Amino acid sequence: MANAIRALAMDAVQAAKSGHPGMPMGMAEIAVALWARHLKHNPQNPHWADRDRFVLSNGHGSMLIYALLHLTGYDLPIEELQNFRQLHSKTPGHPEVDITPGVETTTGPLGQGIANAVGMALAEKLLAAEFNEPGFPVVDHNTYVFLGDGCLMEGISHEACSLAGTLGLSKLIVMYDDNGISIDGKVEHWFGDDTPKRFEAYGWNVIPNVNGHDVDAVDAAIAQARQNATLDKGPTLICCKTNIGEGSPNMAGTDKVHGAPLGDKEIAATREAIGWNHPPFHIPPEVYNAWDAQVEGAARQSAWDKLFATYEAKFPAKAAEFKRRMAGNLPAGIEAKLTGLLQAVADKAETIATRKASQNAITLLAAELPELLGGSADLTGSNLTNWPSCVAVRRNADGFVAGNHVNWGVREFGMSAALNGVALHGGYIPFGATFLTFSDYSRNAIRMAALMKKRNIFVFTHDSIGLGEDGPTHQPVEHAATLRLIPNLDVWRPADAVESMAAWNAAVLRANGPSALLFSRQNLPHVPRTAAQLENTLKGGYVLSDAADAKVTLVATGSELELVLKAQEALQAKGVVARVVSMPSTTVFDRQDAAYRAQVLGTKPMVCVEAGVTDGWYKYIAAAGAKGSVVGMHSFGESAPAGELFKYFGITADKVAEAALSLI
Amino acid sequence: MANAIRALAMDAVQAAKSGHPGMPMGMAEIAVALWARHLKHNPQNPHWADRDRFVLSNGHGSMLIYALLHLTGYDLPIEELQNFRQLHSKTPGHPEVDITPGVETTTGPLGQGIANAVGMALAEKLLAAEFNEPGFPVVDHNTYVFLGDGCLMEGISHEACSLAGTLGLSKLIVMYDDNGISIDGKVEHWFGDDTPKRFEAYGWNVIPNVNGHDVDAVDAAIAQARQNATLDKGPTLICCKTNIGEGSPNMAGTDKVHGAPLGDKEIAATREAIGWNHPPFHIPPEVYNAWDAQVEGAARQSAWDKLFATYEAKFPAKAAEFKRRMAGNLPAGIEAKLTGLLQAVADKAETIATRKASQNAITLLAAELPELLGGSADLTGSNLTNWPSCVAVRRNADGFVAGNHVNWGVREFGMSAALNGVALHGGYIPFGATFLTFSDYSRNAIRMAALMKKRNIFVFTHDSIGLGEDGPTHQPVEHAATLRLIPNLDVWRPADAVESMAAWNAAVLRANGPSALLFSRQNLPHVPRTAAQLENTLKGGYVLSDAADAKVTLVATGSELELVLKAQEALQAKGVVARVVSMPSTTVFDRQDAAYRAQVLGTKPMVCVEAGVTDGWYKYIAAAGAKGSVVGMHSFGESAPAGELFKYFGITADKVAEAALSLI
Repeated sequence: MANAIRALAMDAVQAAKSGHPGMPMGMAEIAVALWARHLKHNPQNPHWADRDRFVLSNGHGSMLIYALLHLTGYDLPIEELQNFRQLHSKTPGHPEVDITPGVETTTGPLGQGIANAVGMALAEKLLAAEFNEPGFPVVDHNTYVFLGDGCLMEGISHEACSLAGTLGLSKLIVMYDDNGISIDGKVEHWFGDDTPKRFEAYGWNVIPNVNGHDVDAVDAAIAQARQNATLDKGPTLICCKTNIGEGSPNMAGTDKVHGAPLGDKEIAATREAIGWNHPPFHIPPEVYNAWDAQVEGAARQSAWDKLFATYEAKFPAKAAEFKRRMAGNLPAGIEAKLTGLLQAVADKAETIATRKASQNAITLLAAELPELLGGSADLTGSNLTNWPSCVAVRRNADGFVAGNHVNWGVREFGMSAALNGVALHGGYIPFGATFLTFSDYSRNAIRMAALMKKRNIFVFTHDSIGLGEDGPTHQPVEHAATLRLIPNLDVWRPADAVESMAAWNAAVLRANGPSALLFSRQNLPHVPRTAAQLENTLKGGYVLSDAADAKVTLVATGSELELVLKAQEALQAKGVVARVVSMPSTTVFDRQDAAYRAQVLGTKPMVCVEAGVTDGWYKYIAAAGAKGSVVGMHSFGESAPAGELFKYFGITADKVAEAALSLI
Repeated sequence: MANAIRALAMDAVQAAKSGHPGMPMGMAEIAVALWARHLKHNPQNPHWADRDRFVLSNGHGSMLIYALLHLTGYDLPIEELQNFRQLHSKTPGHPEVDITPGVETTTGPLGQGIANAVGMALAEKLLAAEFNEPGFPVVDHNTYVFLGDGCLMEGISHEACSLAGTLGLSKLIVMYDDNGISIDGKVEHWFGDDTPKRFEAYGWNVIPNVNGHDVDAVDAAIAQARQNATLDKGPTLICCKTNIGEGSPNMAGTDKVHGAPLGDKEIAATREAIGWNHPPFHIPPEVYNAWDAQVEGAARQSAWDKLFATYEAKFPAKAAEFKRRMAGNLPAGIEAKLTGLLQAVADKAETIATRKASQNAITLLAAELPELLGGSADLTGSNLTNWPSCVAVRRNADGFVAGNHVNWGVREFGMSAALNGVALHGGYIPFGATFLTFSDYSRNAIRMAALMKKRNIFVFTHDSIGLGEDGPTHQPVEHAATLRLIPNLDVWRPADAVESMAAWNAAVLRANGPSALLFSRQNLPHVPRTAAQLENTLKGGYVLSDAADAKVTLVATGSELELVLKAQEALQAKGVVARVVSMPSTTVFDRQDAAYRAQVLGTKPMVCVEAGVTDGWYKYIAAAGAKGSVVGMHSFGESAPAGELFKYFGITADKVAEAALSLI
């Protein structure tokens, strides 16, 4: 069974002329132990809610999971493996969720898989606490992770595993492929950690020194880890000593086998050495039979279906809610409710910081959406991601305390990748927060959410030099602009409480991608809107004031809308009529139809205003087909009170008016 | 002495109405023990080469270092402390290097200070190996770090400290402010690590359970750590139990004292409790006297000056080289040599991948610049950052092996922040590499290099969908565009070997900021240039072909220059003459004078071409004042051979020609 993995990995990488055979060959027996003896899954239904989650954190070894999915009976025919790494195959270079049935998350960027898994294990534990009833463990599955030295060197593994230990996520079981080799060679020269000791320091159970090529030994270790899970003794790390590229007589145990085809000659030698006498991509029926998990998988799910049917009969409301939540559907009638909330916020007409408006929005939404799972990377009181009725997730002396708000600690990247795991697991709409400038720390996890098309809400407060005294290290200057450039990420920078509510509504309604919500530290005045304008807030950009005799269009986001409205008055006093466009989300606006966009942007000279770098705005000036300029930042910020900074950097109503006058 | 720190921290934060008093109050005795009893420094010369380096990794406690610098006699008068967090004071919200004398690095983004310190300690160890002679330890100083729970939760602390342990950086001595509190409250709920055990797992010496309010106890621990350093036993972590905000009768030990002024009433109560009866910002002469380090500092440096003078007499060449390196000066006549290298590469006219061209450039430069310190985050063979004569930095059984190439392990963020530390320490021009897509992981360290204006060279290979089969997780789509938006970062994306050499030359010559060099995985054809064009490569953008009757300007970077040149031919065949502009560095181009920029961009309709997101190019279209369009990416990439991907995403010479024709 293990050699079937080895052969498929060698042959597919050779056919593609690229890929990573060493890891699948080295972890083949570990895969046999887990997938043939422990993993609870149903190849015919990769979406079964109570399946075990399997995460290949060392995603470059993608042929391992493709081989496993094929062999155990998922809808992944051999032709797909033959088509490894080709355009629109189901077997891309690194595993991608929603491309390949059975792949739970997109991995490759090292360390993020284990953090995704921490999020999955957390979601499982929270859902179990919320939905299970005595005798009805409808949520009861493990999260298994394969990872290697690369993941363990990455800082995010520290963030995720430290938190997993603190929260006692006992159903998280990690198999460490301890092969002593990374791309540059023997890891001892750059990675001298005593990894078992490190994980003990996190409060994990550690099973050291397991022979990773002995299926029974790995099997026994997994059984022990499952026992730890049952007893809620915390997560378990199984350290498996392996030989990278095991089976290859001349290249095993070296970095040569890590990331390149073995070559025809070495493949032949390996076939000889492991006694695999079948042609490429040919698996004998007895091996298929040994691997086939369809019957067992169907039986497992059927048993669960029966359990769930009884549960449903006894707890119909809970069962319906569980199904809704796991399907990712919002409650019936939510759209009308959200529209009502938006109207209510507009009616309230509050002048508050948009971070406070965000907290108000969360409070309103939490009453409608029990699936909200909030949190902050140790800035709860600054990000304002908590709400009056929220309950903190804790592991106390008495055990786990389920809740809906996570104190993630100072772990921006780990938080964001774990939130991706929560979204992937299902059952929650997660959100987490930090200061906008520290979106840098979590940036690749935000990108992964966008790539995976998952509903994940990244809250970023303190969105400009407007945060004041904390200075340039804390003042985002380029961050709004650069987040907008991540494909499929919606970025909102609301100008007041109304647009903040609109941004939250849009983020919650967006089922196929993440949103980044950027909020101010400082108060922003309420902007009155017509009913049509209120509705148009959801279009990302809209005309706030127009006139047939306008000579210029002023465009702004966030805190700069106030400046633009003041500039409009100043211009009016000089007899110059200005249109004003509020653009809380360029990314959402860019998805509107061409006619709408053209109408909003107009054809007049344009001044765009944002307390950030300016480059991104010229596309709208080009679209208007007229002259234009941008009032914004051309350097890092400074440490001083916010009001002084806006003056110092020339982001003021006067400067906007000046810029407008110089264009007309 | 400790209470002087407490008073200054309370009073300055109160005056500024913002800041973080808790940490300085809690670490006051630790600061006394280190700064009054161990730190080797000279307040009158903050640039003395052999001073101990002090890094405040928990940079929010900036008033601690401002108080220390003021009290020990640096050029930081009391007025600056009274002006805490005001515009253009020397006391910004977080410590900033080159603003405040004695501040060694800019900190605030948590975890990066300790990683900077690892780079400093590495630089010290390498320089000592290179320059010291028996009896002449001209390089012999420690690197001290203060850090808190926040730094230890951050993933980068794992990356940096794991490597520091592996490499045995014994002169790195870290004082952990173990106060059990972070912004959200008691850390036990989100940070349950056994930190001593964690650091033992890294191979550090750990001194646990030190009473952080007992100056003698901390003093003894530092003495022990210095003994570890002398015996080269590896880095040392001193775990100091402290009470955050110590001295404040009603707020100490809570998160309330972390990040906000105490208020007049509590400040008065604290004064009473600690017996400090002086008005705000008044320090009695006897306290100044006790703190004053000017006499001792001058004596210390004088002793070293004497040692160095003898060394200079005995080893004049070495001494001169040491002085040159520490001053950050390049060797005399380097500019002419670099020009010669550029010409030689142009003459060679090679068609190779620009990552290979980069390796060739490094090889040429390394012969001229012994200060080059290269490395890669476990992608040496892919990034091609090594060169034939480079020597790997190692810690073997026999001890430390100095060299000029570091295998950083899979630690992109840790590497980049440590490289910042190397640049800050002086003596080296550091560079480090990873795949461009993983610039995300290290992004905030790149930003910090730009903010600190340090010469640090970030090499990023595999710069587009051109990397092919590894797929969207590995294909940078938005990264070139987003790096360009970081102020003061120069970004180069060369089109061939010649521009690659130009990029390296520019990066090496740039003394006041970092550069990011983006290189292709795939081969790119040599582009012939005139002598003037060759010289203009250093201007970031230049006209490659022009004609009076041109109807359109085609602009490209990197691998897309080839497409644009082919499109030019195709257009020519249709009787349409096109100008071609190569733009290897938009950031450098944007610094050229207006006349040059206008001449390069011209006034014709413009097609910009780059295998990345398109938004950033419209500023040039706007500058040309004509119609324009951008051929680029509008989504993530796909896993497939590179040639297929360029076709699939429509980034081809045909599409460029089409776009041009549609404009004219």
